[in-house]
Amino acid sequence: MEQQIAPLARLAEQFGRLPGIGRKSAQRLAYFTLHMSAEEANAFAEAIVQARTQVRRCAVCCDLTDQELCAVCRSATRDGSILCVVEDPRDVAAIERTHEYRGLYHVLHGVISPLNGIGPEALTVKELLRRFEDDLVSEVIMATNPTVEGEATAIYLARLLKPLGVQVSRLAYGVPVGAELEYADEVTLARALEGRRRI
Amino acid sequence: MEQQIAPLARLAEQFGRLPGIGRKSAQRLAYFTLHMSAEEANAFAEAIVQARTQVRRCAVCCDLTDQELCAVCRSATRDGSILCVVEDPRDVAAIERTHEYRGLYHVLHGVISPLNGIGPEALTVKELLRRFEDDLVSEVIMATNPTVEGEATAIYLARLLKPLGVQVSRLAYGVPVGAELEYADEVTLARALEGRRRI
Repeated sequence: MEQQIAPLARLAEQFGRLPGIGRKSAQRLAYFTLHMSAEEANAFAEAIVQARTQVRRCAVCCDLTDQELCAVCRSATRDGSILCVVEDPRDVAAIERTHEYRGLYHVLHGVISPLNGIGPEALTVKELLRRFEDDLVSEVIMATNPTVEGEATAIYLARLLKPLGVQVSRLAYGVPVGAELEYADEVTLARALEGRRRI
Repeated sequence: MEQQIAPLARLAEQFGRLPGIGRKSAQRLAYFTLHMSAEEANAFAEAIVQARTQVRRCAVCCDLTDQELCAVCRSATRDGSILCVVEDPRDVAAIERTHEYRGLYHVLHGVISPLNGIGPEALTVKELLRRFEDDLVSEVIMATNPTVEGEATAIYLARLLKPLGVQVSRLAYGVPVGAELEYADEVTLARALEGRRRI
């Protein structure tokens, strides 16, 4: 009879729409919500609405932000001559965690994928090109994912950018640090050999 | 810099409080929420608040409902002479799925667990006893989980109820010992109902 408790069924349905959450998990989460205090439930609901309304794209790099410009673009200490082009805001977070990169970013919000009908116009390519209008950027690092589509997007953008006189590079391919050679796939290993560096 | 997008971090924190959702999953869910339409996000938020405010305990059996009485207690076709006592509303749903049981339920909302400081007064035992005041109920099926605490609770309640002249039985051990009712398959659960034994 559970299905007849409409508010509970509706909430379970909402949870079930989230990625990676099946029917059982969605129900468990819905039941869990019933045990929240009224304040907790309200805070949860408000967090959803606020995230949806307050988070938008940075006017320059298209990363997510709750202000006009993202924290990286606002920063006075970042090197404005280097741009790192990534697919997703989460990739920015991943690169930031290395504490190795001091340049700026550009978030494409996807990759070119003809099979899925995603062309350059669906990405932030126009916004990317606009950033070369004032000649500040001299180097672009393509940090799209090492997948076929990520690779193709990097090559497509490199062709667009090179005529503008900027240096375009690609993240190095190789064996992941801490992994075992034995388990590396052939393509990765071949790329690691190809890109070997003198020590 | 991701952590500085306050609304996103707050939402990820909220998701992270849900059972079985770790930090990475919580972030993934928060990002997913950003891609919802405004209507979808509002519907999700509203579902949380509505479930929390509209779902309450049935005035008779203590199962969850959004009305004064739950669907089972409202039904004219259920057999009011049999009560099935369960720990949790999800157990009611599990037994309903067998389509084998036509009696009423009583939801304890927990089990007696001295180690966790949960005594009979924390459960709906008082509400259970009130149901025997009009002599309609002649049989009680203890369908608490087949765990030590579920078993102990069943025995405790059986001792309370037997002096009232009702027949008390226990789910047959068709249910796998140590598992949770919620996850039992319909056939096993139906067999367990069918083979219930007097205690």
